[in-house]
Amino acid sequence: MLSVAEALAQILHEARVAAPVERPLKDSLLHVLAAEVRSDSDSPPFDKALMDGYAVIAADLRPGGTRLEVIEEVTAGVVPQRLVESGKATRIMTGAPLPEGADAVIKVEETEIDGDPREVRILADSALPGQNLIRRGTNKRAGEIVVEAGTLLRAPELAALAEMGCHEVRIFPQPRVAVLATGDELVPIHSQPQPGQIRNSNETMLCAQIRQVGAIPVPLGIARDERSELAARIDAGLAADVLLLSGGVSAGVLDLVPSELQRAGVEQVFHKVNVKPGKPLWFGVLHQDERSKLVFGLPGNPVSSMVCFELFVRPALRRLLGVSSDEPRTLTARLTHSHSHSDDRPTYFPAAIDQTDDGLSVSLMNWHGSSDLQSTVGANGMVAFPPEPVEYAAGDPVSVIRWSSESS
Amino acid sequence: MLSVAEALAQILHEARVAAPVERPLKDSLLHVLAAEVRSDSDSPPFDKALMDGYAVIAADLRPGGTRLEVIEEVTAGVVPQRLVESGKATRIMTGAPLPEGADAVIKVEETEIDGDPREVRILADSALPGQNLIRRGTNKRAGEIVVEAGTLLRAPELAALAEMGCHEVRIFPQPRVAVLATGDELVPIHSQPQPGQIRNSNETMLCAQIRQVGAIPVPLGIARDERSELAARIDAGLAADVLLLSGGVSAGVLDLVPSELQRAGVEQVFHKVNVKPGKPLWFGVLHQDERSKLVFGLPGNPVSSMVCFELFVRPALRRLLGVSSDEPRTLTARLTHSHSHSDDRPTYFPAAIDQTDDGLSVSLMNWHGSSDLQSTVGANGMVAFPPEPVEYAAGDPVSVIRWSSESS
Repeated sequence: MLSVAEALAQILHEARVAAPVERPLKDSLLHVLAAEVRSDSDSPPFDKALMDGYAVIAADLRPGGTRLEVIEEVTAGVVPQRLVESGKATRIMTGAPLPEGADAVIKVEETEIDGDPREVRILADSALPGQNLIRRGTNKRAGEIVVEAGTLLRAPELAALAEMGCHEVRIFPQPRVAVLATGDELVPIHSQPQPGQIRNSNETMLCAQIRQVGAIPVPLGIARDERSELAARIDAGLAADVLLLSGGVSAGVLDLVPSELQRAGVEQVFHKVNVKPGKPLWFGVLHQDERSKLVFGLPGNPVSSMVCFELFVRPALRRLLGVSSDEPRTLTARLTHSHSHSDDRPTYFPAAIDQTDDGLSVSLMNWHGSSDLQSTVGANGMVAFPPEPVEYAAGDPVSVIRWSSESS
Repeated sequence: MLSVAEALAQILHEARVAAPVERPLKDSLLHVLAAEVRSDSDSPPFDKALMDGYAVIAADLRPGGTRLEVIEEVTAGVVPQRLVESGKATRIMTGAPLPEGADAVIKVEETEIDGDPREVRILADSALPGQNLIRRGTNKRAGEIVVEAGTLLRAPELAALAEMGCHEVRIFPQPRVAVLATGDELVPIHSQPQPGQIRNSNETMLCAQIRQVGAIPVPLGIARDERSELAARIDAGLAADVLLLSGGVSAGVLDLVPSELQRAGVEQVFHKVNVKPGKPLWFGVLHQDERSKLVFGLPGNPVSSMVCFELFVRPALRRLLGVSSDEPRTLTARLTHSHSHSDDRPTYFPAAIDQTDDGLSVSLMNWHGSSDLQSTVGANGMVAFPPEPVEYAAGDPVSVIRWSSESS
């Protein structure tokens, strides 16, 4: 049976970004930039005052105070008209261009006006050239790279691009991810289950996971365990970039998903991974045009689907979104409690990971197995246990993987 | 001058959640639940098979193999009709209800059919009662709390609520946050600045920050430094739950924001905080109906606005969203390089924080001060330096604050 790493490598081999699209900068938050952007100008574009005060020649200042003639007032957005010569000063506001001749700005708090605003008394004994101003091009020169291709665009990157007038950017589009739950036992979440039935929690869960990665969920409801219905829903799902099915991939008599996917032209890449929960995972590809569509047959048990999404689907979606980093990223955390683990498969155990000043800590949820969604409330990741019996003491280090990031 | 902690306390004192609203579960991702939800049923709602195989009486199994009569086949969603008595077995699929009488499930891989499907040979020598099944109510009992009030709803919480049929939830609504940049020097980001002008990067930046917190940005463009224009835009901005202005709060002759806000009925709570960058921060409240509107006059320099947002606005928005945790959360990280710091104000320095197996590490950006947006590209947080000269060596611990979370 494939290992987790082997399965992931096979998935990522098929996951390729789509052609970039042009998008308004303001709509590109948390997208990945497809082409580097260079500055169109120096930043700042002119020598600029960083304080409200007076633009002076630093060498003019004398201990005990200096009287200077005020020749002009320059507010932000206005171009200074007059040269500052020795004995003169220009009243200047934060963000305004420095007048020619001046080489320092004295804060208004270090000055005094004695009735006539055409004369200022500088109280400071001295000033350094360059004080309280920033020279043109200090932050960035015209032609330099502002944001590299492949960068995730967050507030700082959007702001830096906005400053350079880059109001449209080339980004990788968000993949559309169809979600189809299969199983005669499923009813919609607003229904009252009859005996033997359960609600389709997987659709809500997978759509939320998809959204948290930054992709677009396309919920397709429930398909009965019946070939013609399943075939029709699979066709609908293959209109998306990625199709996630849940259920119907085990060894049961009604596990029709692999055969119906293959009938729809989806080539199986693998079936079954040496992992717990999630062993029945199926993965295949529909070769169409230039770009393959990815199809995941997730196990029906909700926590199996949840874990398989984080281990396998999320890295694939991140790759489609243009993120190049290796995923999922395994970190080390210290167990808050002792734990005895024993399983012959690598096990991913829902857990609450917390940042402490001594690194990450992790508490295992009181988890009853792959059908136990309730115990995942509050979990934000999982511990990766090796396929062997281990007795862990509180404080022992374990490998953890964080789930899709969230505000927290 | 107020300290950062004092200013934040005054802000949070005014930040109150709005009345909860009813929302479809699927649209409530990353909202905070306003009222606890209890389970409407046991989870699972019936004793359930966790494997494809045969439901048997464990005590029937004998070393060397056991032949049992197959009396029924139960797939998921179907209710078993027949009692399993000694010598009998029911073919059962993952997720199907356990038939009465049976107390264990034997995996299909541990069985053999010898031609006639009405008889199965169990190869396992023995079985434990409870094996490969989960008992009704193991995960959750009817009436128990599924998700507590005040919980941020992520994929696991939505899934747990979906299982319990909670297709509508009471959540706190997202605040609408108006963004108004002020200043004669500003032009829209798609414009070519004339001499002395710069582009309005603050709107793009603040809208992205607002969105990353989970609130709704309402961009209002640029207001000139002119009283009647500013007054009209402020009135428009006060239609939102929160109004952020940038610029016009320093000591300059055109810094009209505080006086125009007060003319619009906004009561000043404080002006100026002992912080760098961000000293000119202005905060006030418009008392209206039952709930106050919060108004922040952010400094015009972009990194001052960015830092003030993370230090003061983000915690307020999180409070409005119903998140009760203390913010911003200060963590400890180790500097990757030596650094010499000296300032008489507490300084928040843009930085890249990274998770390592030995805790957090932090690299300072090559930052040129409050107007230097370009160096914040790649930053995801800031180091809080104390108001005193300190020589830091590489590896020294410093206090850090992470910015609005993101997928990364």
